[in-house]
Amino acid sequence: MTTDYKTSKGQVFERETFESWNKRKNFYWQSFEPYGATKGLFDYGIAEPLEYEILNIWRDHFIRSEKMISLKTSMLTPYKVLKTSGHVDKFADFMCKDPKNGEILRTDHLIKDVIETRLRGDKEARGQKVDEVDDPKKKKKASKVAKTAVKLDDEVIKEYEHLLATLDDCQQEDFANIVKKHDIRNPTTGNEVEPPVPVNLMFQTEIGASGKEPAFLRPETAQAQFLAFPKLVEISGGRLPFASACIGYSFRNELSPRSGLLRVREFLMAEIEHFVDPEGGKKHPKFDRVRDIKLPLLARDVQQSGGSTPTEMTVGEAVEKKVIDNETLGYFLVRIMQFMQKIGIDMSKLRFRQHMENEMAHYAADCWDCELLNSYGWTECVGCADRSAFDLSVHQKATGTNLQIREALPEAIKSTEWVAQLNKKSAGSRFKKDVAKVQSALDSLSQELREKLSITLKDQGKVEVDVAEVGKVELDNELVKIEQETTTKTTREFIPNVIEPSFGIGRILYSLLEHVWWTREGDAARAVMSFKPSVAPTKVLVVPLQKDTRLTPTVQALEERLDEEAISYELDQSGVSIGKRYSRNDEAGIPFGITVDYESLDDNTFTLRDRDSTKQVRASLDDLVDAIHKMIKGKESWADVQKRLPAVEAKEEDK
Amino acid sequence: MTTDYKTSKGQVFERETFESWNKRKNFYWQSFEPYGATKGLFDYGIAEPLEYEILNIWRDHFIRSEKMISLKTSMLTPYKVLKTSGHVDKFADFMCKDPKNGEILRTDHLIKDVIETRLRGDKEARGQKVDEVDDPKKKKKASKVAKTAVKLDDEVIKEYEHLLATLDDCQQEDFANIVKKHDIRNPTTGNEVEPPVPVNLMFQTEIGASGKEPAFLRPETAQAQFLAFPKLVEISGGRLPFASACIGYSFRNELSPRSGLLRVREFLMAEIEHFVDPEGGKKHPKFDRVRDIKLPLLARDVQQSGGSTPTEMTVGEAVEKKVIDNETLGYFLVRIMQFMQKIGIDMSKLRFRQHMENEMAHYAADCWDCELLNSYGWTECVGCADRSAFDLSVHQKATGTNLQIREALPEAIKSTEWVAQLNKKSAGSRFKKDVAKVQSALDSLSQELREKLSITLKDQGKVEVDVAEVGKVELDNELVKIEQETTTKTTREFIPNVIEPSFGIGRILYSLLEHVWWTREGDAARAVMSFKPSVAPTKVLVVPLQKDTRLTPTVQALEERLDEEAISYELDQSGVSIGKRYSRNDEAGIPFGITVDYESLDDNTFTLRDRDSTKQVRASLDDLVDAIHKMIKGKESWADVQKRLPAVEAKEEDK
Repeated sequence: MTTDYKTSKGQVFERETFESWNKRKNFYWQSFEPYGATKGLFDYGIAEPLEYEILNIWRDHFIRSEKMISLKTSMLTPYKVLKTSGHVDKFADFMCKDPKNGEILRTDHLIKDVIETRLRGDKEARGQKVDEVDDPKKKKKASKVAKTAVKLDDEVIKEYEHLLATLDDCQQEDFANIVKKHDIRNPTTGNEVEPPVPVNLMFQTEIGASGKEPAFLRPETAQAQFLAFPKLVEISGGRLPFASACIGYSFRNELSPRSGLLRVREFLMAEIEHFVDPEGGKKHPKFDRVRDIKLPLLARDVQQSGGSTPTEMTVGEAVEKKVIDNETLGYFLVRIMQFMQKIGIDMSKLRFRQHMENEMAHYAADCWDCELLNSYGWTECVGCADRSAFDLSVHQKATGTNLQIREALPEAIKSTEWVAQLNKKSAGSRFKKDVAKVQSALDSLSQELREKLSITLKDQGKVEVDVAEVGKVELDNELVKIEQETTTKTTREFIPNVIEPSFGIGRILYSLLEHVWWTREGDAARAVMSFKPSVAPTKVLVVPLQKDTRLTPTVQALEERLDEEAISYELDQSGVSIGKRYSRNDEAGIPFGITVDYESLDDNTFTLRDRDSTKQVRASLDDLVDAIHKMIKGKESWADVQKRLPAVEAKEEDK
Repeated sequence: MTTDYKTSKGQVFERETFESWNKRKNFYWQSFEPYGATKGLFDYGIAEPLEYEILNIWRDHFIRSEKMISLKTSMLTPYKVLKTSGHVDKFADFMCKDPKNGEILRTDHLIKDVIETRLRGDKEARGQKVDEVDDPKKKKKASKVAKTAVKLDDEVIKEYEHLLATLDDCQQEDFANIVKKHDIRNPTTGNEVEPPVPVNLMFQTEIGASGKEPAFLRPETAQAQFLAFPKLVEISGGRLPFASACIGYSFRNELSPRSGLLRVREFLMAEIEHFVDPEGGKKHPKFDRVRDIKLPLLARDVQQSGGSTPTEMTVGEAVEKKVIDNETLGYFLVRIMQFMQKIGIDMSKLRFRQHMENEMAHYAADCWDCELLNSYGWTECVGCADRSAFDLSVHQKATGTNLQIREALPEAIKSTEWVAQLNKKSAGSRFKKDVAKVQSALDSLSQELREKLSITLKDQGKVEVDVAEVGKVELDNELVKIEQETTTKTTREFIPNVIEPSFGIGRILYSLLEHVWWTREGDAARAVMSFKPSVAPTKVLVVPLQKDTRLTPTVQALEERLDEEAISYELDQSGVSIGKRYSRNDEAGIPFGITVDYESLDDNTFTLRDRDSTKQVRASLDDLVDAIHKMIKGKESWADVQKRLPAVEAKEEDK
């Protein structure tokens, strides 16, 4: 798909130029290159300190400022946990096998490739302009096929277009029908493919050597956070709302990874689990502070009627009109947007898209994606979902661990209820460690059922109950008492709901790289990376005017000072001109340059250069260090500094 | 083993009291508790922000200050990489199976347990005092066995003691002999065990679904750093020395993890690969800055003669006397010690122990461990090894990728050499992608062999060469030319050596927890965690004097100010006394407390309390914020602040 993606300066963005910039500057690369590189795995070079700064801002913006409980949890996850959460059964993609060469193809990719190629062939046959294909490999393939351009019926074109638009919603049967009906074959071999089958996307391994502990690399950090819930209650004092946050790696065994950093097998996530009372409309205590902030919202109904332009609306209005389900969800959308702004995301390339009904998990109440536009199109970078009480409920049921909140009621409530209570002693010796599961099964019975069971118990002396993971158990009068009891309730017990903002750090980082990338007028081969000073991987470039030992002591003193101030810097004393050295380092995104010249020897003043404007000021080292600190912290901009400190003429023509 | 481990205040350290503190404060816990918890996997609660601060200091101390290239590399690692590095064949522990119940026991643990129990039984039988056993589970087992106390011959005792002392050096055969000779059985079943076999300790998985890409979770970050070597050369400009650094997770599939955070299956490492020229004595450009700093060194010869007391020696003297092999190794030992000091490690519980010859890998030139003393004994927390050129050499050989440095020679050197050069065209079409491997095999032949081959080639028209990963290949005159050439060398090509400081972050963090833990005089159940302000997980505790809404606006204003200043804080407005609240939060290690009282409403002054001394000063909020910032940055101590700001009487008796 082509996009109208342009740089922040309005220049046409060429991905090949961008990629050759990355090859030159080593921000990231495919892992294990000497062994042929592994698809979907990446190493970060200069992108590593960039990621570190992004995470620092994330921690400050969310964990410190919202007083979240930060957690670190294990990546290795036992089978049982992910069986309960549903990942063992449902975390899968559909695959088709080419039976002749054994190749395994992701069904949605396969269908998309084949249909797009046919549509391109049709355009070719009709003499229309064929869309450019971004991926150079695809381009080759496409042009090969385009030679055998075939005109299609108008009806078929319509069907194909509809098919592409709805491909994301397809299930196994739909895929099977499409493959059969439209004769979808492996495009590289021309072979027919086998019907689609689900393949689980988790990496499987084993803990220990006993063969009894199958495990997975986690597909999300969320599950371990839910299992830490009893600890979270202790740490927070149990007063809702509270939140945990976890920055950690998750894994997805993609079968044919594409799209560079956007779809990888091992990726860093930052996930927040915000626990709220399901009653009372999920209000947020700090909502008033953000009420008037506008969000670019692409709501479900707009999408349904074919729209793709987001509406600007204050979050207050959006919650009032129920465009956004509740205050807490709305509050987080604002905080997500503010975070993106802090790290330097282009706000004209950000939107919030609501999930369609069929995109959401069945238990989810509402879900909004923060999407960033990059040259691959609009890309989901943060999911912000209301997961309801689903996860805690299933884990409580499976383990018998109490994952509820107990809250004092404002006033006591009298009520009469059927209560089914195991006899601790006899049930304990009968069911051993399963006793909690049996009680939990009884607790989940409705009032009606409990009443019925009490009658059966009286009549027949025993009842049968279905217990999760245990099966049917028989209970007699010795084991259980089922009676109507009048109780005075002073507390309320409930499983909280969860609002989950989940950040894909790699996708955000990649989008940021594209957003800050542009080329200087008249120097299209050379990029400028306009990182904000706070996120720039290196803060200062030190440039001695010439290779001259007379400058050395001053350069060294400057280096020592920057070290003392803990300001990261690079020294470029290569022989080329100052202009060339600056231009080369603009590609690394270093925001400030300090030139050491002969005047510096005399009066300890230096010029400070701004990367984006190439403007320079001159001042004492103390003043410059102070200005740099303030700009890194975001307390001053370059414009502020320019007003305060005397300008000097920039001479960069000598490239 | 019992240790003389004491707190920094000289109190006897009881691990059970320490563990109950952790249970109360939730610093860390075993993962997946609701599912029965998984051994060797841990979640961090309050330890997470602590780890973050430790890593921040690590990054600043090493990456920024030493201008290292920070990398992030993949955890999933293809089989081939770890085959070459030797991990597939050698990264193993020896295991014995109990054939009757299938239990798998780590051989060294098994032998140690059985022999120690016998020695304890002997003491019991002789009516001697039996050493306390730290592990409560062991204690139970020990006491059970002690009932059947059996006296041993003096000769046997000697043999057992020698056996325990040399257990770490045993190989498969030694273990097999011990198990047989000493009738070592599974202590829980009394069954005989099968002979020891090696079990690889890497977690295995598979990339993709083709079955063709077996992979492991990496056992160290080092290998991926070596494979990024060509990038490091580009980024650094290729001028030695340069270093890469990687903070990342590694994995070890322990069969029976013990010792809490000290031996886990998933752990964070911070590894530095410092590349140096092997010629010229591995000097370090900044060695002069550290020459006079003293290190506590436990050298190899001292250990050999049974000593265990380290010698204080300046690093300059140690390198001169060849106690430490070279300047670079010495420089890093100093930097490691300085890092430990920065994060608050007790310097009386730190030593550097040199590896014995048989502890080191065959290729290592020298290796020193930085060991920290904790209640488990002296624990290896950082390894600092000279890995020579081993890793780069084997990867170059296996892949044909050039992993050398090319350096201009000060003056050109003429030499006559036998050169075996493939014909690019014919060899290219014959060997395809293996052509680099074939050339690499030729390049690794000695001069003598090349001369011999040239004769064979002349006589028989062909020669046979062994090529790594390819096998034997036949080369004729069309494919290869072997001739004597006189060349003028202006550059030198060589594989650099690697000095590797490798930090186990979890072990350092755990030792730190023990080092800063003590109990207040007269309140032995309550701990104080004396974290340095820079590493403390939370910096400030806000304590309103009473639950009184009149205080609320001032508390809120204080909170807003702390937020603005990005100072992390907690608010404790529970109903208990100030003293109790402070004492409770001392256990979390919050270094500073701010009390909001009725005076604060009038004059906006507050008292600031120091956790360790419980002393208080009173000043304006501006002054207090300034003091807190300076103490967090380590620019002022509490003693400095006490001198500057007026003291107030502390009233904490009301617990």
